[in-house]
Amino acid sequence: MTNVLLPGATIGIIGAGQLGKMLAQSAQKMGYRVAMYDPNPQSCGFAVANSYTVADFSDHDQLLAFVQSVDVVTYEFENIDGTLLDRLAANSYLPQGTHLLLTSQDRLKEKNWLNAIGVPTVSFRGIYSKEDLSREDRGVLKTTRWGYDGKGQFLLDGQADWDAIEASLAKQPLILEAFCEFAYEVSVIVARDLQGAVKVFPPSVNEHIHGVLCTSLVTGDFDAAVLAKIVDQATVIAEAGHLVGVCGIEFFVTQDGDIVANELAPRPHNSGHYSMEGCNVSQFDQHILAITGRPIRDIYLWEDSLMVNILGQHMPQIEAVIEAFPEAMVHVYDKGEAKEQRKMGHFTLTQAGVSEVLRSDFLQAWRQLF
Amino acid sequence: MTNVLLPGATIGIIGAGQLGKMLAQSAQKMGYRVAMYDPNPQSCGFAVANSYTVADFSDHDQLLAFVQSVDVVTYEFENIDGTLLDRLAANSYLPQGTHLLLTSQDRLKEKNWLNAIGVPTVSFRGIYSKEDLSREDRGVLKTTRWGYDGKGQFLLDGQADWDAIEASLAKQPLILEAFCEFAYEVSVIVARDLQGAVKVFPPSVNEHIHGVLCTSLVTGDFDAAVLAKIVDQATVIAEAGHLVGVCGIEFFVTQDGDIVANELAPRPHNSGHYSMEGCNVSQFDQHILAITGRPIRDIYLWEDSLMVNILGQHMPQIEAVIEAFPEAMVHVYDKGEAKEQRKMGHFTLTQAGVSEVLRSDFLQAWRQLF
Repeated sequence: MTNVLLPGATIGIIGAGQLGKMLAQSAQKMGYRVAMYDPNPQSCGFAVANSYTVADFSDHDQLLAFVQSVDVVTYEFENIDGTLLDRLAANSYLPQGTHLLLTSQDRLKEKNWLNAIGVPTVSFRGIYSKEDLSREDRGVLKTTRWGYDGKGQFLLDGQADWDAIEASLAKQPLILEAFCEFAYEVSVIVARDLQGAVKVFPPSVNEHIHGVLCTSLVTGDFDAAVLAKIVDQATVIAEAGHLVGVCGIEFFVTQDGDIVANELAPRPHNSGHYSMEGCNVSQFDQHILAITGRPIRDIYLWEDSLMVNILGQHMPQIEAVIEAFPEAMVHVYDKGEAKEQRKMGHFTLTQAGVSEVLRSDFLQAWRQLF
Repeated sequence: MTNVLLPGATIGIIGAGQLGKMLAQSAQKMGYRVAMYDPNPQSCGFAVANSYTVADFSDHDQLLAFVQSVDVVTYEFENIDGTLLDRLAANSYLPQGTHLLLTSQDRLKEKNWLNAIGVPTVSFRGIYSKEDLSREDRGVLKTTRWGYDGKGQFLLDGQADWDAIEASLAKQPLILEAFCEFAYEVSVIVARDLQGAVKVFPPSVNEHIHGVLCTSLVTGDFDAAVLAKIVDQATVIAEAGHLVGVCGIEFFVTQDGDIVANELAPRPHNSGHYSMEGCNVSQFDQHILAITGRPIRDIYLWEDSLMVNILGQHMPQIEAVIEAFPEAMVHVYDKGEAKEQRKMGHFTLTQAGVSEVLRSDFLQAWRQLF
């Protein structure tokens, strides 16, 4: 095997939030050493890292020193300056590449690229000034960059806050996306290795509340026709995007079983956390295997799985979760201050019939806190 | 729930070898912080610990400061002075207890205790001076303390090295154990929580070479009658030993399907590593749940599993393992110098029919290096 980095090599991870921490734990289990880079000195990944650097994501010199000090570089944080990362890539080993990152950082670019490779999206158009909009426009207006977890979005439903939209437009272009009358939202984690093998994790049906992922449900009885389309489109994206590692992809599924791609996250994704308990190999394991040049593994779902996010306001309920779901694996990221709406952990249940839990009083109360 | 330590609490682990590292990773996944204590500054657990102390296992003052600095104490290293640990237990929170440790540290005490609680062992007697032995004695002569991985054992087969035996006797008493005509060796990990619940992991059939564990095979078709005896005896040991956490127990299984207990390891055990991939919950997870006062979980075997140890002399073969078994999870502990016979890692395969791998040319060559 060429380009295989053996255990003992050091993996540099840009971003040391919970995704970085879980990547680090996977890498260290396999015998790799982990160096992490993040501007936040309280980053939860630092506690497990072999070494770390506290510096800004825009600090070219520090980033350059960091990427040159490790055997392979990866990133878990998608809002890093892609152009800077491209320059760094020329001076280090970054098999994950920057193609999908640079594409997905701009929603307009992302949707144009998806359409160009034959992946359907909702209809959309770029909004560069207020003249590009009329009061009759309907849809979802989003910032083209730096938005996540529902931030930077405006609903054009006849009651929009036009002052806020104009203020946002003054900072960056927006994208107007048509409403999608979807039946449900799914996401999928696709993995691709240096040898070109593509493996797709079982898709999860997601429930967002106020733009933040609340639950991901993965069952073995997922609609076969929809699954085939998802696997097909995810494979197209992984190959056209020269993916090495894992990428999360969100789709809307219409009443007719058609799928439209919503957005890409060129890194491990919250909706794939269930794979740590539900599958024979986790999204973090696959990512580490891929970026170290090792073959990624076939993926099996052991059992139907449900993942539920734990936000800052849920933290006083941790003991209640343990009591209510003694069979759950409760992950807590140890991120410090439990701010409202901040992702502090998640818990996963793997058992037949786990979808029933979605209808439990416990989950209903959990949603009320979202 | 009383006595539940919630995520954010700090777990102090005495011993920072691979067992400590894997315990730490499990604890950190759940949001606990981990402080580790080991005399070896290169301990592999230190790389992932939130904090660590380098000091001798016999350093009372350092140990006392350590155990008092954490919310709960556990140990992964069984050759610590149990009497000292008992004194420390009085000044800290050590739910794991010292009963099983103090019992298992002395092979004579261990076998007497097992017999006393109704668990059969091979016949044995204590050897305190050379007058207690005759040249006609047959069996295995072992040091009563500090032996592991086959160290400190003499075969009384008519060709024993009597000078070495006398030298050993000068240092400590020995135990003479009858040969056991066993059909196979198994071990089992038993877990017990503070509420008294006992759960037993599926037993593994073990293959030792030169006294060191080479392979552990766990299959769903294990003999039901033998399994019932193992679960029964393991439960007796867990309850009589006031276990909180996990304990490894080795048994011999005779041709008639009878079992005799061989030895105890009151902590996670090498033969239970398969549980990380093969089961819904690992031995490390169960241990952390138990010592933090949380209920341990029901245990399911997802798939037949084979674990193979990687010793120092196997390290140049890591790339060959990756090529031969792309579906394996290869764990490397990152312990530094790859000394002959030193446990440096292991790999686990989880798939139906995995027992076939035991007959492969690859495993045959692997055994040759043991």
